[in-house]
Amino acid sequence: MALAVGALTFDVFGTVVDWRGTVIAEGEALGRKHGLEVDWAEFADRWRQEGYVDAIARINRGERNWTRVDVLHRSKLDQLIREYGIDGLSEEETAAFNRVWHRLRPWPDVVDGLARLRKRFVVATLSNGDVALLVDMARAAGFSWDCVLSSELAGTFKPNRECYLAAARLLDLPPERVMMVAAHKSDLRGAMAAGLRSALVFRPHEYGPARKANLTPEPDFDVVANDFVDLAGKLGC
Amino acid sequence: MALAVGALTFDVFGTVVDWRGTVIAEGEALGRKHGLEVDWAEFADRWRQEGYVDAIARINRGERNWTRVDVLHRSKLDQLIREYGIDGLSEEETAAFNRVWHRLRPWPDVVDGLARLRKRFVVATLSNGDVALLVDMARAAGFSWDCVLSSELAGTFKPNRECYLAAARLLDLPPERVMMVAAHKSDLRGAMAAGLRSALVFRPHEYGPARKANLTPEPDFDVVANDFVDLAGKLGC
Repeated sequence: MALAVGALTFDVFGTVVDWRGTVIAEGEALGRKHGLEVDWAEFADRWRQEGYVDAIARINRGERNWTRVDVLHRSKLDQLIREYGIDGLSEEETAAFNRVWHRLRPWPDVVDGLARLRKRFVVATLSNGDVALLVDMARAAGFSWDCVLSSELAGTFKPNRECYLAAARLLDLPPERVMMVAAHKSDLRGAMAAGLRSALVFRPHEYGPARKANLTPEPDFDVVANDFVDLAGKLGC
Repeated sequence: MALAVGALTFDVFGTVVDWRGTVIAEGEALGRKHGLEVDWAEFADRWRQEGYVDAIARINRGERNWTRVDVLHRSKLDQLIREYGIDGLSEEETAAFNRVWHRLRPWPDVVDGLARLRKRFVVATLSNGDVALLVDMARAAGFSWDCVLSSELAGTFKPNRECYLAAARLLDLPPERVMMVAAHKSDLRGAMAAGLRSALVFRPHEYGPARKANLTPEPDFDVVANDFVDLAGKLGC
């Protein structure tokens, strides 16, 4: 099976990078600077859920026009700043904080695992994040993709079928020769519905210690791995 | 000026890679294997001019629908094989020869120059070549782009304005903060018409020893450089 696969497409937020840990750390640093008392874990979870997950779901239901993720993030950030009574941030600081999503830190296995996978497979992002955000993120973390693909190129968001098909088309591979790698089953189910292969990578700490990922074995997926190094081994790299 | 630029977008065929030298070398190897007597330099020049340059010009004039470059190349290759009376190539060999455009060799300064430029700027392709072709080429040559952008994403070809504007939009930069790097003045003029900056890099051997590049100084362009290492120096990297 692995021989037939030519390219791996990676979900990014949660699968490649620890969005929650990075947002909390940058929030805490901002809090110390400005003497703020904010529950940054809750802040991060709401920013992610309301500003991104819920907003994308509305767009995919046709209730809102397609919008760049930077703009979605900023709109929710402005609202959270008001709600949490955060005072004293300049426009420059707010804009810089919004760009925390451009410099999310990878999980510890990512750089080594990707380097191994890349020897055998084309490795590309396939994220709902904007192209420029994904480019900045890889540069900040010091690794490279063969290709930065984003739902932005399809003008819609995963798990809409067209995102996966556009990626396969741009990689010039039939969908069954592309394997989606993600920590989220809904993403993988979207990819499978479009004819792609699937690799589930467990990221049990994505939501922090308080929330548990569903670690039930999933026979539906082609590969199940504990991290990217494990994935490389299971794909024969 | 260099400070304001955030990203460099690179023309590829001729500017980054020596298409002519690579096609001649692979043609000669094929010729030895099959005992063919072919003028591979002429073959390479015709494949490039008729199969790519002329075909793209027809598409940009609206005389033909947009077509992937792989398909344009293959169509001309089949015709040249008949014209030159080349016998005995299997379909597998013909398909592999068509993919020579996926493994063109970079000019000797490219890998070092790009590594320096990349420390300061986002470096992206902006080629008329297909995305998958550009991905394969970088992998074969052992270097990485921050982002693989192609006219394919705009559904048209350079020097159409929309290609340059799409690149700036995807990089999330205003056109004046993107610098097009090319060995071809028509490409740079197209970029400038869309509001991008311009860097001319001389590639006097692109067309081999028999044809001379126009080396007249060009005060119209923001930067003029002898190669990518020289460009890095001139942009303060």
